[in-house]
Amino acid sequence: MAETGQRPMDLLSKSLNAQVLVKLKGDRKLRGRLRGYDQHLNLILEQAEDLSDGEPQELGTVILRGDNVILLSPSSKTPPRKPKGR
Amino acid sequence: MAETGQRPMDLLSKSLNAQVLVKLKGDRKLRGRLRGYDQHLNLILEQAEDLSDGEPQELGTVILRGDNVILLSPSSKTPPRKPKGR
Amino acid sequence: MAETGQRPMDLLSKSLNAQVLVKLKGDRKLRGRLRGYDQHLNLILEQAEDLSDGEPQELGTVILRGDNVILLSPSSKTPPRKPKGR
Amino acid sequence: MAETGQRPMDLLSKSLNAQVLVKLKGDRKLRGRLRGYDQHLNLILEQAEDLSDGEPQELGTVILRGDNVILLSPSSKTPPRKPKGR
Amino acid sequence: MAETGQRPMDLLSKSLNAQVLVKLKGDRKLRGRLRGYDQHLNLILEQAEDLSDGEPQELGTVILRGDNVILLSPSSKTPPRKPKGR
Amino acid sequence: MAETGQRPMDLLSKSLNAQVLVKLKGDRKLRGRLRGYDQHLNLILEQAEDLSDGEPQELGTVILRGDNVILLSPSSKTPPRKPKGR
Amino acid sequence: MAETGQRPMDLLSKSLNAQVLVKLKGDRKLRGRLRGYDQHLNLILEQAEDLSDGEPQELGTVILRGDNVILLSPSSKTPPRKPKGR
Repeated sequence: MAETGQRPMDLLSKSLNAQVLVKLKGDRKLRGRLRGYDQHLNLILEQAEDLSDGEPQELGTVILRGDNVILLSPSSKTPPRKPKGR
Repeated sequence: MAETGQRPMDLLSKSLNAQVLVKLKGDRKLRGRLRGYDQHLNLILEQAEDLSDGEPQELGTVILRGDNVILLSPSSKTPPRKPKGR
Repeated sequence: MAETGQRPMDLLSKSLNAQVLVKLKGDRKLRGRLRGYDQHLNLILEQAEDLSDGEPQELGTVILRGDNVILLSPSSKTPPRKPKGR
Repeated sequence: MAETGQRPMDLLSKSLNAQVLVKLKGDRKLRGRLRGYDQHLNLILEQAEDLSDGEPQELGTVILRGDNVILLSPSSKTPPRKPKGR
Repeated sequence: MAETGQRPMDLLSKSLNAQVLVKLKGDRKLRGRLRGYDQHLNLILEQAEDLSDGEPQELGTVILRGDNVILLSPSSKTPPRKPKGR
Repeated sequence: MAETGQRPMDLLSKSLNAQVLVKLKGDRKLRGRLRGYDQHLNLILEQAEDLSDGEPQELGTVILRGDNVILLSPSSKTPPRKPKGR
Repeated sequence: MAETGQRPMDLLSKSLNAQVLVKLKGDRKLRGRLRGYDQHLNLILEQAEDLSDGEPQELGTVILRGDNVILLSPSSKTPPRKPKGR
């Protein structure tokens, strides 16, 4: 196998506990703190907000099904925070 | 494999018997008590209500096919209730 | 593997020979007696009726391809009936 | 594995050489004599007719790709006919 | 496994070098001589014509990706022709 | 396994370094020199042009994701050209 | 297996750390420096810009889910740059 650069899943790992922006199919946009993921790109976001319609709408903790995701952007401005007790 | 944080399936496990909100493709929204799930994100909701069109519509117990799910949000406000005899 | 609660497929098994309501993609709705299923959620409904357009339309026995299913709701009001000779 | 009732594929097997009605995605409807199928629900219909637009349109023998199928209804009124020499 | 009748792939095999009509998703229709296929229903058509918009449009030899196919109808009127040297 | 005629992948192999026309879902059309492919029908086109909107638009070398492809037509009129140093 | 020419994944490997243009389903277009990919065509783009609506919109680093990709075009004009410390 040829050189692949950084693996998308490894960048997800580095973004744990940081703020991420997620664009979904159907023109929806969420923001939240990434708490976990799996190989299907299913995601857990904490303190998630739906930014699709003007005012941000609070969603709390959400599980996002990966096949709805178009792109995910780790925000470099958010300092990671210690996860709450696991 | 890199660190993945909390697995989405594990958060589902913790939400068993709690109230969850589920957004589906096609702008539909259901609420109900999570009674079970499998690896495809197929879900069983008890005392489910369809919140898509104004007045909540009672659905009773439903099996939701996972590929319709966009996101699922465990409601932190609902105290888990003992499941009825299995 | 974490605790998963009741498996969606097991609830299907319990609903055999009972009346179920099935919502399909594309805003269609069927009702019928569940005679069988497989792991893809392909279903056999007996005495099926299409409830999508006003008057119920009789369909007899139908095989439903699972990937069209959004949700299935076992009706708790219908007493199971002995299946006809298999 | 729990009891599954009659398997959808087994009902297809019983419907061989009988008349079936097939509803397809995109509001199309075909009728024909079921000559064969495989595990993807790919079907062979003989003396098939397209019933989608008013007048039935004769199609002869067709191979239907399974992923277009919504439902299939074996017509209980058509006596099976001996298949032509295979 | 129950009796399945004639396998869809076997009917394709019998239609090699005969004229076939192929209906595609998105209301397109092609006609051509079937030169080959694989298990995904990817097809090779020779002397293919696009019949979607009034006048047939010549396409020469085409490879059709199977997931676009709705149905394929072997024309019983076209005598098979010896394939050109392979 | 029954006789399958020429395999679609083998025709791709024969079309290497020749000009091909590719129709994509969503009414797009590309033309270019086929430099490579894989089993998903992912393609590399060199000197690719987008022919979808009037004037051809130059794209240079592109990787096309196979699941967007409807059909691919090797142009019999273009003499293959030696590939540039690999 | 027949000769396949250059493998699409190998061209991705050669484009690491170079500027690429990515067209997505739903008429979106991104540009950025390719930092990594996997076998699903999931991509990492650095200094990514969304070119879909007039003014380029800065996105920083993004993970693109592969199933949204239509095509990717490595820009031959951008000299590769050493990746930042990995």
